[in-house]
Amino acid sequence: MPLLDDTLDRIGPPDAAAQAEARERQAQLTKPAGSLGVLEDLSVRLAGIAGTCPPPVPARPVVAVFAGDHGVLAQGVSPWPAEVTGSMVENFRAGGAAVNVLARACGAEVVVVDVGVATPVVADDVVWDRNVRRGTADLRVGPAMTREEALAALEVGIGVADELVERGHDLLLTGDMGIGNTTASACLVATLTGADPTVVTGRGTGVDDATLALKTVVVTEAVARLRRPAAHPVDPVEVLSEVGGLEHAALAGFLLGAAARRVPVLLDGFIAGSAALVAQALCPAVVDHLVAGHRSAEFGHTATLQHLGLRPLVDLDLRLGEGSGAALAAPLVRSAAALLAEMATFDGAGVARKDA
Amino acid sequence: MPLLDDTLDRIGPPDAAAQAEARERQAQLTKPAGSLGVLEDLSVRLAGIAGTCPPPVPARPVVAVFAGDHGVLAQGVSPWPAEVTGSMVENFRAGGAAVNVLARACGAEVVVVDVGVATPVVADDVVWDRNVRRGTADLRVGPAMTREEALAALEVGIGVADELVERGHDLLLTGDMGIGNTTASACLVATLTGADPTVVTGRGTGVDDATLALKTVVVTEAVARLRRPAAHPVDPVEVLSEVGGLEHAALAGFLLGAAARRVPVLLDGFIAGSAALVAQALCPAVVDHLVAGHRSAEFGHTATLQHLGLRPLVDLDLRLGEGSGAALAAPLVRSAAALLAEMATFDGAGVARKDA
Repeated sequence: MPLLDDTLDRIGPPDAAAQAEARERQAQLTKPAGSLGVLEDLSVRLAGIAGTCPPPVPARPVVAVFAGDHGVLAQGVSPWPAEVTGSMVENFRAGGAAVNVLARACGAEVVVVDVGVATPVVADDVVWDRNVRRGTADLRVGPAMTREEALAALEVGIGVADELVERGHDLLLTGDMGIGNTTASACLVATLTGADPTVVTGRGTGVDDATLALKTVVVTEAVARLRRPAAHPVDPVEVLSEVGGLEHAALAGFLLGAAARRVPVLLDGFIAGSAALVAQALCPAVVDHLVAGHRSAEFGHTATLQHLGLRPLVDLDLRLGEGSGAALAAPLVRSAAALLAEMATFDGAGVARKDA
Repeated sequence: MPLLDDTLDRIGPPDAAAQAEARERQAQLTKPAGSLGVLEDLSVRLAGIAGTCPPPVPARPVVAVFAGDHGVLAQGVSPWPAEVTGSMVENFRAGGAAVNVLARACGAEVVVVDVGVATPVVADDVVWDRNVRRGTADLRVGPAMTREEALAALEVGIGVADELVERGHDLLLTGDMGIGNTTASACLVATLTGADPTVVTGRGTGVDDATLALKTVVVTEAVARLRRPAAHPVDPVEVLSEVGGLEHAALAGFLLGAAARRVPVLLDGFIAGSAALVAQALCPAVVDHLVAGHRSAEFGHTATLQHLGLRPLVDLDLRLGEGSGAALAAPLVRSAAALLAEMATFDGAGVARKDA
């Protein structure tokens, strides 16, 4: 697959000179050293991604909501009917979902990418038709999709990142919609971090104890197919095709595509995090181009963030998905960049420094 | 003091009917119940403050930065020279400080209130002259100010809240500037929460171990003057005059004034929190009208938030003050209100609910 290989080739490390310059500039700004905490580290990260200091202050954020359905729903892992995925796509189009409200609040556009919705969806400027397959197969009983479908969905994500960057978007936010998709995410996280399925399988939209127990069995069985001796490392595309979702594959491609373009990506929660693990397995350097928007209340997300080595910006017990946590964090990213770009220096403002 | 008494009389409980309506509405919105976490609770709180559901989405936030100097600086509790308070006021006026950048990022105005700066400050539209006294006396050796001065500073804060609400501001953010003011805050927190001074005295702008040890001795000695048998409860105005700062007194008044007007206040960090303890001691109901913007890295802030019963929205190791943490949280407050006001309902959007 030339597009994927070419994209992986183009992902490089952060720009060390820009990062050093950002650290030096932080020390000149009119504030005690280190007093802006995580925002200082974030500004350095943004400088490294952009390759300039100060990095640009994101002016045109966009949320890409990747939507797909899940055959594993047949196992009873969610109390929500599969048709909700399609109705929520219509809700996104009409602007009434949480991610629409939060995107408006932070000045972001929303695009919805049908990469795997089971029911046909009408395409327009908001909803993009990139359907690879009308929902995955049941991952408990066999592969969720073929290797070719997983690769095609990865390339959908790369293509969406490319197109959004071409349109002038300078901060890409991940979003997702797919009834049943926390089950696929739990499988991805267990496989790619080595965590026990019981630890990373959670309540998703709010399942009861019996459903959680069933969901954990489903994840455990599916993951067992992929467990192998250390001498045979995991193939990320195989993992996607065995236990992933079409939106997970597209999200992984989206992260890789953004990193190849050196545009920062703001991750939403558990679904995005599990896709980031796939992207990391394909290309470890991708992680330097990601910012964790929030920590989800979903059990497995903390292990996911630890494996990625990312500290979330917002931690407010959200467990909605859609890109809601990423949209909430967007003003923090913009603020981190603006502080580095716009604050006065001690010398410029005539403010005395502390005694040595 | 009629203004203070009148203000305390006007502070009521949150509107229970509006809160119940907000909870009911949250359950109709197109999302799993509870999936917006802390933002759902925040929307209910905003409805209770405003007395309407949905509560207004704040459109005109403002940061009021109360500035004062501290006689205790003579003890060597900070490596920064006192003149920095005045130079930072000029930095705020010129728009180059962190709070200016963060306020611009969230669409907030900034006003600076000189309530106790030691050096004369030129007044204009941005910097308001409400000077009560040119810096406090050294709180280690005696009262920081007279009771009359503490009351006058409290009333400055009430008046500023009134004036900003009259001008149409619908979300008030607290800010502060005062070299040495974490020492006064530590005294307030230790006295009003009963915490040990060693636990709530921190590094402020970043003092070394020797300075921290000295600062802790200063706080311990000052607080000892106010420790008394339980039969003689603390008088909050006496506490302010003995160990507070002029900006702390004005901030406490600002919170009370906003609560009396039923306009939400977004607290910054440790300085604001210690002032909120004073306001709480004067009128426990004030706390229902406050939102904690962030958790500061300063040691004593966590104990302060616990005593107030408030959960912070942002937790990013900031320890700058100025209103920086409040400004970072302002978009979250706006988003919580917007979600309740703007999201579609299940019935309205034709989205199926989960199976019972």
